[in-house]
Amino acid sequence: MTAAGLGNAGERVEAARRMYDVVRRLYPLCRSITGEGLRESLRILAETVPLERSEVPSGTRVFDWTVPKEWNIREAWIADASGRRVVDFADHNLHVVSYSTPFRGRLGLQELAPHLHDLPDRPSWIPYRTSYYNETWGFCLTHDARRAMGPGPYDVLIDSSLKDGALTIAEHFVAGTSDREFVVSCHCCHPSLANDNLSAMAVCSEMAARLTARRTRYGYRFLFLPGTIGAITWLALNRDRLPRIAGGLVVAGVGDRGGFTYKRSRRGDARIDRVVERVLRRSGEDHRVEPFTPYGYDERQYNSPGIGLEVGRLGRTPYGQYPEYHTSADDLGFVHPESLAGALDLLLRVVDELESDPTYLNLEPRCEPQLGRRGLYRALGGDPDPGASQMAMLWILNFADGDHGLGEIAERSGIPIETLSRTAETLARHGLLRRDD
Amino acid sequence: MTAAGLGNAGERVEAARRMYDVVRRLYPLCRSITGEGLRESLRILAETVPLERSEVPSGTRVFDWTVPKEWNIREAWIADASGRRVVDFADHNLHVVSYSTPFRGRLGLQELAPHLHDLPDRPSWIPYRTSYYNETWGFCLTHDARRAMGPGPYDVLIDSSLKDGALTIAEHFVAGTSDREFVVSCHCCHPSLANDNLSAMAVCSEMAARLTARRTRYGYRFLFLPGTIGAITWLALNRDRLPRIAGGLVVAGVGDRGGFTYKRSRRGDARIDRVVERVLRRSGEDHRVEPFTPYGYDERQYNSPGIGLEVGRLGRTPYGQYPEYHTSADDLGFVHPESLAGALDLLLRVVDELESDPTYLNLEPRCEPQLGRRGLYRALGGDPDPGASQMAMLWILNFADGDHGLGEIAERSGIPIETLSRTAETLARHGLLRRDD
Amino acid sequence: MTAAGLGNAGERVEAARRMYDVVRRLYPLCRSITGEGLRESLRILAETVPLERSEVPSGTRVFDWTVPKEWNIREAWIADASGRRVVDFADHNLHVVSYSTPFRGRLGLQELAPHLHDLPDRPSWIPYRTSYYNETWGFCLTHDARRAMGPGPYDVLIDSSLKDGALTIAEHFVAGTSDREFVVSCHCCHPSLANDNLSAMAVCSEMAARLTARRTRYGYRFLFLPGTIGAITWLALNRDRLPRIAGGLVVAGVGDRGGFTYKRSRRGDARIDRVVERVLRRSGEDHRVEPFTPYGYDERQYNSPGIGLEVGRLGRTPYGQYPEYHTSADDLGFVHPESLAGALDLLLRVVDELESDPTYLNLEPRCEPQLGRRGLYRALGGDPDPGASQMAMLWILNFADGDHGLGEIAERSGIPIETLSRTAETLARHGLLRRDD
Repeated sequence: MTAAGLGNAGERVEAARRMYDVVRRLYPLCRSITGEGLRESLRILAETVPLERSEVPSGTRVFDWTVPKEWNIREAWIADASGRRVVDFADHNLHVVSYSTPFRGRLGLQELAPHLHDLPDRPSWIPYRTSYYNETWGFCLTHDARRAMGPGPYDVLIDSSLKDGALTIAEHFVAGTSDREFVVSCHCCHPSLANDNLSAMAVCSEMAARLTARRTRYGYRFLFLPGTIGAITWLALNRDRLPRIAGGLVVAGVGDRGGFTYKRSRRGDARIDRVVERVLRRSGEDHRVEPFTPYGYDERQYNSPGIGLEVGRLGRTPYGQYPEYHTSADDLGFVHPESLAGALDLLLRVVDELESDPTYLNLEPRCEPQLGRRGLYRALGGDPDPGASQMAMLWILNFADGDHGLGEIAERSGIPIETLSRTAETLARHGLLRRDD
Repeated sequence: MTAAGLGNAGERVEAARRMYDVVRRLYPLCRSITGEGLRESLRILAETVPLERSEVPSGTRVFDWTVPKEWNIREAWIADASGRRVVDFADHNLHVVSYSTPFRGRLGLQELAPHLHDLPDRPSWIPYRTSYYNETWGFCLTHDARRAMGPGPYDVLIDSSLKDGALTIAEHFVAGTSDREFVVSCHCCHPSLANDNLSAMAVCSEMAARLTARRTRYGYRFLFLPGTIGAITWLALNRDRLPRIAGGLVVAGVGDRGGFTYKRSRRGDARIDRVVERVLRRSGEDHRVEPFTPYGYDERQYNSPGIGLEVGRLGRTPYGQYPEYHTSADDLGFVHPESLAGALDLLLRVVDELESDPTYLNLEPRCEPQLGRRGLYRALGGDPDPGASQMAMLWILNFADGDHGLGEIAERSGIPIETLSRTAETLARHGLLRRDD
Repeated sequence: MTAAGLGNAGERVEAARRMYDVVRRLYPLCRSITGEGLRESLRILAETVPLERSEVPSGTRVFDWTVPKEWNIREAWIADASGRRVVDFADHNLHVVSYSTPFRGRLGLQELAPHLHDLPDRPSWIPYRTSYYNETWGFCLTHDARRAMGPGPYDVLIDSSLKDGALTIAEHFVAGTSDREFVVSCHCCHPSLANDNLSAMAVCSEMAARLTARRTRYGYRFLFLPGTIGAITWLALNRDRLPRIAGGLVVAGVGDRGGFTYKRSRRGDARIDRVVERVLRRSGEDHRVEPFTPYGYDERQYNSPGIGLEVGRLGRTPYGQYPEYHTSADDLGFVHPESLAGALDLLLRVVDELESDPTYLNLEPRCEPQLGRRGLYRALGGDPDPGASQMAMLWILNFADGDHGLGEIAERSGIPIETLSRTAETLARHGLLRRDD
């Protein structure tokens, strides 16, 4: 493992372009928590990195939940008496409330009104609405369009289907040399919303592809899941795996121009928290750190008291703190290639840090081992300065008790992590140390 | 349970008047750690709230102590040669050292002097002195009266009795729906001292009466005890009950005009400490918080290492920090009805907080339970604002691990405790939560 | 035990003189980690305090190490063609690299150069160099002398021997009444370096002599060891004893004019750390406290993860932070009698504190014991001021739970440690308390 983050400027520009292309291709598809739009999106991601897909049948019990029926949609519109389509799903897939049941009929505006959703404060934006677990139908439209609507009558069509099918979840596993793994999770269930969630889908798939090319100590499991129900389903189906998970990250909303936001795991000072915060501090990037709250993305599920994984969340501007959130304004212009590249770079640095921040065990822990007879100690004594590599050895040997990662030793000692990492390898080669994975 | 504190202004004025009347009736009685004055005082309190009285015979072993002989007094005076009573117990019951042995004789001033106690710094005040465990007799008088005494001789009478009898302790138990309880303890052994201890006797009996009318989750055990020996006796006789006691408060000196003082339990961050401090912060009342010290009132006994109850102390100006303490100046004018009402209000708010700050267990702790199918989640998704009640559910479910009270969740989440409390009831009704009492 | 620190001014001056004399006598000897110079030094120390010496044969395995061959030297010089000795061990024993192998030969400057060590920045000082575990030879000389050397040839003689023998370690044990002990350790392996390590040798032997005259609760084990290999050897040979060691101090570099530096044990808040820091704060002496690092003196070995003793280090200016360190400028003029006395005084105060800061167990822990019937409580009650000795009793009884030392109780209560100590003895005499040693 020699990479540090995303690499050089050329590589960064190239990665930015590639991820933005993925966002652009995903954008027009109508994703939801189930259905063909989700499957097609995962097919596109699979061009970047192979994905293992699972289809979990509707009706499957997953903890307290049940996998819902599968939803698909072909056509949906509202037409006025003249046949002019006032709202048309063909124009924008946010126009239909996700999981809208099939409907065909002629209604006056008064009857139709409860099924119409707009944003009076943002008259030219279409809101995003869903109704996964409450069977109904509806249209989202701009406030301008809504205001222009006369008393009707209107012809309304929703040519959707809601029937037994499957929930699609996908993952890619980068095996490590140890059996400990970190999860990286993003949600894939939103339709034409570019920052939320396409940015994370593009970044996570690119990250997975890059890690596949590396040899890592830890395994990295990339989860591409419909929000909430997907995470719950994955957790329910992978209960046996949980003890091997050393922590993880939810990635969401990494395409806007804002600085980074790291939301801590419920524990608050888990290894993933310490590592991400260390990487953020060193990055020079504008960032802030937030405490855990039980609302947000799938970190809610991972950190629930009966699951107890140590999973933080990395994003840029948090959901709900930019007006474009969950509206048609979260479009391709709201996401920037360089923002995607910056997020990928940071995530790769987190991996670098995890990989170079292992915990070790000193195999000769009673007093210092005799470094001299192993050729590990300067030949001549007495010089006040023991030299950096010898200090690194002493620090590691003293703190290789299975409790301290190299990164923590680096902070405590002031010795660069790279030096410690190299030194740990040397000590391991001499049989004085082993990884405590 | 709907009350918050003491209720409206009218109720407050009424309660203040009633408690002050109790203080006024108790004031003239000569209480000590045993005897008829103590019994009569408990009879008066029992007009406010029923009391279960125990008479523990003299000689009973209670831990390292022995219940002392019972002391009663009828008459006591010092008369000069002309028959004028220089000091007369009939004028003020502080005039006799508590537990003075019977005495009759004629003495010159020189012989009498070691038996006279006054306060040169406060020439018009009578001090309060006791001699429970050291058989002797004495008089307390003003320095002015002391200085006016000539060489004598004086006729001295103490018509007291000190013989086998009983120690009287009393309690009132407000049963809760759970078997966990809090104790509220005050001492009842001081004679005519209005703030120390009549104020607490009046407030605690009124508080007990009010809680009796409520339905509470926790039990509340009100202890009316002679200081030190009473608490030790109660603890020795109730050893089996100790594991059920979740904490408690000693109440003392709540009638003066000073702000509140809360003295923490020995543990320092016990639940009772956190709750009282939260209530004080919110009250807007002038207050300060002190660390535990092993001196003071009966918190000494409750917090002793072999007992280990988590008991704090609530009062106004601490003993010894007001000059009137343990003198005749701690009289009816030193205690204010409104101070009594303020203390009662605060104590009731502590109960409100304890009752609304239970710890819970999430019964569906693996991921979030599906709130939607229980009708607990807004029907339509996508809105950035999840709404207060849904946030409350998520916070509670995530922290209902038996370690976090609702009040702590309130502080951490910024959600009002009332909302959390209501929400917890809703979740419990849906089988998602149970009290961890 | 009545002493407090070093005692009065006269005693201090006398002790300072005596310790400085020891430094002066030790200074000319050529010590190393083995050999006759070390043995002779221990003989001199044994005039102050009896030492139990052990000779551990070369080749003995001690943990990961092997006791090295014994090194002795008689003569060593470099002479120019005219026979003039350019460098002569007879002038200064720093002139020869410690553990130099025997050598005799004629060399040109070019051949000789790799064997010459000087300090260009400090042209008139001789550096100190060692080569214990790498068989070679060398000379240390001033930069001025080095620059004056012509192309040679030079006659070189090192009349040393490096052969199987023994490593000498020495200790003095002051037995306590309990079986718990503290170690006080100094290194004795440096040649003519007055502050590092003669100052500590003198102070530790004087301290040992003084403690021998006292009756102490804890045992105090004084270790006079060659650095690193000596500590490792002692630990390897005394594994059974380690569980009895309650903590300790490495003493080093206590003769310069600098303030004190205390380096914490690895644990950081061990009892020895709290005690030393308390003593330093009270001393009024200029001092600073440093966190543990795994470099330094033999605290490295004591605090290694497989040994785990709680050993801090007390010195004045730390090694490497004064330019004279490991050079001929660390001479008799660099060490001051008063600095030695100050260090001794501080160390004795640490002992005073340990001795007067025992942990106790309350033998009557349920409520307060009845002090009155034991004559331990003032006869007359009611006085607001309970008096210092009664407060001391209450504090001790409440915190005599085996977790709190008297010193901590002193800090928490504001009661002088002397009062607490006296009070604890009283309580123990009455069967209410026992030492938890």
